[in-house]
Amino acid sequence: MPEEPAERQLHFNLFLMGVGHHEAAWRHPRTDPAAAGDVAHFQRLARAAEAASFDSVFLADGVEARSDGGWGLISHFEPFTLLTALAAVTTRIGLIGTVSTGFSEPYNLARQFASLDHISRGRAGWNIVTSAGDRAAQNFGRSANQDHAVRYERAAEFLDVVTALWDSWEDGALLLDRASGAFAAPGRVHDIDHVGKHFQVRGPLNIPRSPQGHPLLVQAGSSDNGRAFAARWAEAVFTAQQTLAEGQAFYADLKRQAAAAGRDPARVKILPGVVPVLGSTEAEARALDEELDALISPARAVGVLSTVLGVDLTGHPLDEPLPPLPPVTEINGAKSRFELIRDLAERDRLTLRQLVGRLGGGRGHQVVVGTPEQLADHIETWFTRGAADGFNIMPPVLPGGLDDFVEQVVPILRARGLFREGYTGSTLREHYGLPRPAGRYAAA
Amino acid sequence: MPEEPAERQLHFNLFLMGVGHHEAAWRHPRTDPAAAGDVAHFQRLARAAEAASFDSVFLADGVEARSDGGWGLISHFEPFTLLTALAAVTTRIGLIGTVSTGFSEPYNLARQFASLDHISRGRAGWNIVTSAGDRAAQNFGRSANQDHAVRYERAAEFLDVVTALWDSWEDGALLLDRASGAFAAPGRVHDIDHVGKHFQVRGPLNIPRSPQGHPLLVQAGSSDNGRAFAARWAEAVFTAQQTLAEGQAFYADLKRQAAAAGRDPARVKILPGVVPVLGSTEAEARALDEELDALISPARAVGVLSTVLGVDLTGHPLDEPLPPLPPVTEINGAKSRFELIRDLAERDRLTLRQLVGRLGGGRGHQVVVGTPEQLADHIETWFTRGAADGFNIMPPVLPGGLDDFVEQVVPILRARGLFREGYTGSTLREHYGLPRPAGRYAAA
Repeated sequence: MPEEPAERQLHFNLFLMGVGHHEAAWRHPRTDPAAAGDVAHFQRLARAAEAASFDSVFLADGVEARSDGGWGLISHFEPFTLLTALAAVTTRIGLIGTVSTGFSEPYNLARQFASLDHISRGRAGWNIVTSAGDRAAQNFGRSANQDHAVRYERAAEFLDVVTALWDSWEDGALLLDRASGAFAAPGRVHDIDHVGKHFQVRGPLNIPRSPQGHPLLVQAGSSDNGRAFAARWAEAVFTAQQTLAEGQAFYADLKRQAAAAGRDPARVKILPGVVPVLGSTEAEARALDEELDALISPARAVGVLSTVLGVDLTGHPLDEPLPPLPPVTEINGAKSRFELIRDLAERDRLTLRQLVGRLGGGRGHQVVVGTPEQLADHIETWFTRGAADGFNIMPPVLPGGLDDFVEQVVPILRARGLFREGYTGSTLREHYGLPRPAGRYAAA
Repeated sequence: MPEEPAERQLHFNLFLMGVGHHEAAWRHPRTDPAAAGDVAHFQRLARAAEAASFDSVFLADGVEARSDGGWGLISHFEPFTLLTALAAVTTRIGLIGTVSTGFSEPYNLARQFASLDHISRGRAGWNIVTSAGDRAAQNFGRSANQDHAVRYERAAEFLDVVTALWDSWEDGALLLDRASGAFAAPGRVHDIDHVGKHFQVRGPLNIPRSPQGHPLLVQAGSSDNGRAFAARWAEAVFTAQQTLAEGQAFYADLKRQAAAAGRDPARVKILPGVVPVLGSTEAEARALDEELDALISPARAVGVLSTVLGVDLTGHPLDEPLPPLPPVTEINGAKSRFELIRDLAERDRLTLRQLVGRLGGGRGHQVVVGTPEQLADHIETWFTRGAADGFNIMPPVLPGGLDDFVEQVVPILRARGLFREGYTGSTLREHYGLPRPAGRYAAA
């Protein structure tokens, strides 16, 4: 396993999102809205990110849609199928898919990630979510979603099962010895015999241990439960942080919690999301930002915001302040995102229309509007001042916004010695400087 | 939709199976056993079958493995990931994956097939199984599998839900009208509000209707429950039939049941499995057959047979006849395959060693040992005498056995006007001459 280079380097993940992260990207003349349903568009994005030696691409996901056609944040494609289609046209970049622990069986999920890891030769990552909101639960036989704490309890047990299944074939257990006829080594494929509160799983998995041992574990929830879960399990963390001070506080807290959980904090990589709105001058960047915001359809944006908040605001007058929101303790969704949005609306006394405009660029992630130099300064500041190990890049329009970032910002960061010139490893774990886990069943 | 050509044509499906269907394929000098774990091997097979204008490739599947490393019939790769990897390197051939209704949620399954159908531009098919045996159930929180009849009851409701989800977006519901900001057409995306005995699913699906409307529905169970299910749902049927008379009886029965269910029997394509053991002379073919059988490891083969039968025969003396088997009413597995094997063992008074030898070639499917002309005659006979609409091709070794079939048998069948020279359609449904279903929610 190659070690992390002596000098700490930035990690970049491309956050895939249709034709762009801005709410109105699909209406902007620089995009082709039909591309969100065309696998070739995503293949082009993955190849462009790979050409720039990004660590990974990442697909968000949900298991719901609204019958008014408002997709919210939901991707058109299902993650395993889309990521495999990206694996087929790339060779180095990591492929991170979101799958909920709430609506899948651990055996199926362990298998699909192991299979993707084999097919991609060690490039699979799992962004672990517990899924917020009742709408998803209603697609799976429940009238309402499980409580936030129960979801995390289930998630922790889910991880115990999945990682045991990934280890159930020891490395090298597949012999394929033609002469003797021995297919697998006796005693090196294991039942896991998990019996827990939420799951009973015998094992073994029906696929040998995958190139990375365990696909990379990624997490994105920033609530108290979410941070505790990340400290225990996550190797990369995607997060939304608006200010440097908030970013530093989150970074320090998560590294501290990881250490308290007995882990090396350097092996938990923290990547805040950033929406780069670029122009050759600051004024040009501002004009693009305003041009995008003017295209927001408030009705659609309110539907998206309702999904994100877990509070139905459809029908509320656009030019009035938000109605009183329930206390966060009653929110059974993405608690930390709820608080971020609530605080923003209260602090700046925003009407609903103003709020959806403010969130249209990045759904709570920081939006940096400026020149490539200004964005590079911003990235360097966060990276060197204890707020980030890298960034989750969220271009407002795709593919154009990615091309801009790669052509205009990456060279500046390379010139400053902050970002690699090319890949030094071949697996996703190697890109992030993370070790390959040993199997738990292997004889000492 | 192109119509079926005026003259009825054969349909060919390549049944993917590691490095070959013969039990000992991995020990034969013509194979590379490590290829079973290499996606490039499967990509090469799919491209070769596509070059020969086969209708489809098909991947069997199970959700279990044995800790002694005996995989039985289980594929190394998970179907959605493997088939997407094949979609990425082909453009016309259909991609059929096995997924059980017993251990998946209908929302997840509907989504993954719809996503594969979009990615492949209309080439996805679902081989519907209910999964036999307790071992799989033990990976999903149950000590034993559900009863055969309950499994089929659940499967029928599962199909109701999945097809409704596939229809939940009407064709053309995705507007993407930039000028107006209308993303989807009002009233053309539907909740399905399914409330049944096994499932409650609100919908809609979070992906627009796929190129085929419904991915092709395939089925392979030949028990009474299985046939009734196929008559209601299946558009292609994979089956194991040993003799022409048995094949004709099955064909006639299933077509009759489909008609009784109100369907056009011509739209239920029946494809028996056949293992082509080819030689330039019959003696050469026999020599290959014997060479393969001599490589069978009886212990491993008994494990596979135990899985297929649903009766544990491991430890039974190899050179004695089978122990008394339970009545089929007590078999909660693949009932029709159990009867086929039991009858074969009784009819020919086989020891366990002889039985595993007899089954080693095709697990109950017909094994045709002979010259390309002889196999072409066999295929023509079944096709023209009411036993088959095509064949599920199961080469004993892969890729070599597929190459032999394509190079030696396909040209004979083309010369006889029985098999197409090239594709006439672009979707899997078009290859099989099947219509694209209308959506149930579309206004008249």
